[in-house]
Amino acid sequence: MTETLIDHLNIEPIRVGLQAQELTSKIIAKWDNKTKPIGSLGRLEALALQMGLIQQKDVISLKQPQMLVFAGDHGIVDEGVSAYPQAVTAQMVANMLPPKKKKTGGAAINVLAHQHNFNLSVIDAGVATILPEHPQLLQRKIAPSTRNSVLAPAMNELQAMAALHAGMDVMRQMAGNVVAIGELGIGNTSSAALMMSLLTKIPVENCAGRGTGLTDEQMKTKLHALTRAHKRHKNASTPMEVLCAVGGFEIAMMAGAMLQAASDRRIILIDGFIAGAAALVATRMAPASKDYMVFCHVSAEFAHQSMLRAIGVVALMDLGLRLGEGTGALLAWPVLVSSARLLNEMASFESAGVSKKV
Amino acid sequence: MTETLIDHLNIEPIRVGLQAQELTSKIIAKWDNKTKPIGSLGRLEALALQMGLIQQKDVISLKQPQMLVFAGDHGIVDEGVSAYPQAVTAQMVANMLPPKKKKTGGAAINVLAHQHNFNLSVIDAGVATILPEHPQLLQRKIAPSTRNSVLAPAMNELQAMAALHAGMDVMRQMAGNVVAIGELGIGNTSSAALMMSLLTKIPVENCAGRGTGLTDEQMKTKLHALTRAHKRHKNASTPMEVLCAVGGFEIAMMAGAMLQAASDRRIILIDGFIAGAAALVATRMAPASKDYMVFCHVSAEFAHQSMLRAIGVVALMDLGLRLGEGTGALLAWPVLVSSARLLNEMASFESAGVSKKV
Repeated sequence: MTETLIDHLNIEPIRVGLQAQELTSKIIAKWDNKTKPIGSLGRLEALALQMGLIQQKDVISLKQPQMLVFAGDHGIVDEGVSAYPQAVTAQMVANMLPPKKKKTGGAAINVLAHQHNFNLSVIDAGVATILPEHPQLLQRKIAPSTRNSVLAPAMNELQAMAALHAGMDVMRQMAGNVVAIGELGIGNTSSAALMMSLLTKIPVENCAGRGTGLTDEQMKTKLHALTRAHKRHKNASTPMEVLCAVGGFEIAMMAGAMLQAASDRRIILIDGFIAGAAALVATRMAPASKDYMVFCHVSAEFAHQSMLRAIGVVALMDLGLRLGEGTGALLAWPVLVSSARLLNEMASFESAGVSKKV
Repeated sequence: MTETLIDHLNIEPIRVGLQAQELTSKIIAKWDNKTKPIGSLGRLEALALQMGLIQQKDVISLKQPQMLVFAGDHGIVDEGVSAYPQAVTAQMVANMLPPKKKKTGGAAINVLAHQHNFNLSVIDAGVATILPEHPQLLQRKIAPSTRNSVLAPAMNELQAMAALHAGMDVMRQMAGNVVAIGELGIGNTSSAALMMSLLTKIPVENCAGRGTGLTDEQMKTKLHALTRAHKRHKNASTPMEVLCAVGGFEIAMMAGAMLQAASDRRIILIDGFIAGAAALVATRMAPASKDYMVFCHVSAEFAHQSMLRAIGVVALMDLGLRLGEGTGALLAWPVLVSSARLLNEMASFESAGVSKKV
């Protein structure tokens, strides 16, 4: 199933082959000739190398960055797993879409997209209510909410495939060579925790956190629901099986978008815990897709750090965020810009007439 | 001595008094009414509160940010404590100052200052050679290099006072309400390590790192020199005594600039290990000055984390940098901008019609 899904894609590892090796040497030599101690720009040097290898150039250009926020609802909210009512998903979508007289919406991601000049699109992957048309809203609803995974599979295989394909399709429409992937959906930390547990075999209680801010009592309720859902679906193990059993439409669509973005050789900014669950799916389906991803931050959501460890990556920032939407991705963005500019623009020892090491 | 030095300043703790308490409540309430889970913007919420308290307003304005790079040379380089020759200090100053036909210099800090619209000034606090005039260079040389602290006090008290006053004076000339403080000076991790050890009583070998990139052999040489200098000056304990014994002109000047900036109620971005040593001096002289400082990053320099712990702060970022100049400060800057914008611009639950917690 996965094979046919990604058959038409072309996701190449960025570090394999003679050309990649030559470019790596070229970029490292370029860094080492800049007027600074060798290696002293730390993670920025590795970031620029990654971006250069993605773009197959030693001069990095970042064009028309896109912020995609995938929204979906979750049947498991019936179990009382969230501190907010389900209606908030649709309300927050409305809050994100600028009203007629205004330039920008009122959500955190609007402020950050405006600050950093990202084009913002919201994708309705499966919000429970019908959303009014809006130029920045892409209507790709698979169904109004997934089913409650405590009682049934969250979605069927056709729905999962449709969501993955919709994500690919959305991505193909996007201009530019940088995309940030975020989400919105009451209950989706529950779905992400279950996916993480089934895909990594980490016990589900070690994958669950307080989401938007549960009390101790509510956390007990959430854990109880997750344990039951986990038990029901414990045999799900492939990415497709896990998506069907406990996934979310927005999570499946994000995974599809990531796979397409990797195939397009875009730089992919991954936001927090939920986007991380989608990255887990994408990297299981096509391991080389990881080469195109920058894991922007580690959130305050309890299990995010171990999720990143399971993917085998280290996040760029730790600001104690637990908001989603893509906020962590856009907060990290200027560091990527700096990294590219420093590689592109800094003087070399020769051009500046600065002495090298003794 | 310290008393007379800061007598004319007015460095008030930002969290004391009825007005500060009321403003704190107001800003927290403002955050809690934004369309996001309570507390979900993590450190950004605390940052905006700090900036609001500095500016005594619940709407933050960031104006004409200044990047000040203080440059100085160090007599202790005679002991072979650096991987680069002393001439590099002057060469890097020249690299930072844009040549006539160009808009910007070739150093890392030029690229970042340009990216983030900071006005860049370089201050000659004590570079070993005479530097040609340049509109962006402020000539405040105390002496051409400090003395070698292994053999003598690095500076006398008149010089330390002159450097502190020059830093204050430079700061008073600056427009805007935000200042980033960075530095440049071959050998200055040695001076900073000695200052840290004398001021915090942490053994000097736990304060010394590889600076711009020493080999094992060179590191042994550095430790030997630092141990000797430490032994000679072990009785130095007040900030003034420590500055005189083992300080640097650029470090003293940074401390003066920080004290003045706090008195002016500016937001002060502190760069890495050397700027941290200046912050250690400033906060020992006037503890409330810490309230105006944002410690932007923890560097790869070995002792930086324990220095921050000694000051009692947690850095915003960890990008493995060890370059200085102010690079870490400017890399963190967009996070401060985001934090201010989010507090100023995000919608409230009421205005957006979003439901609160169940």
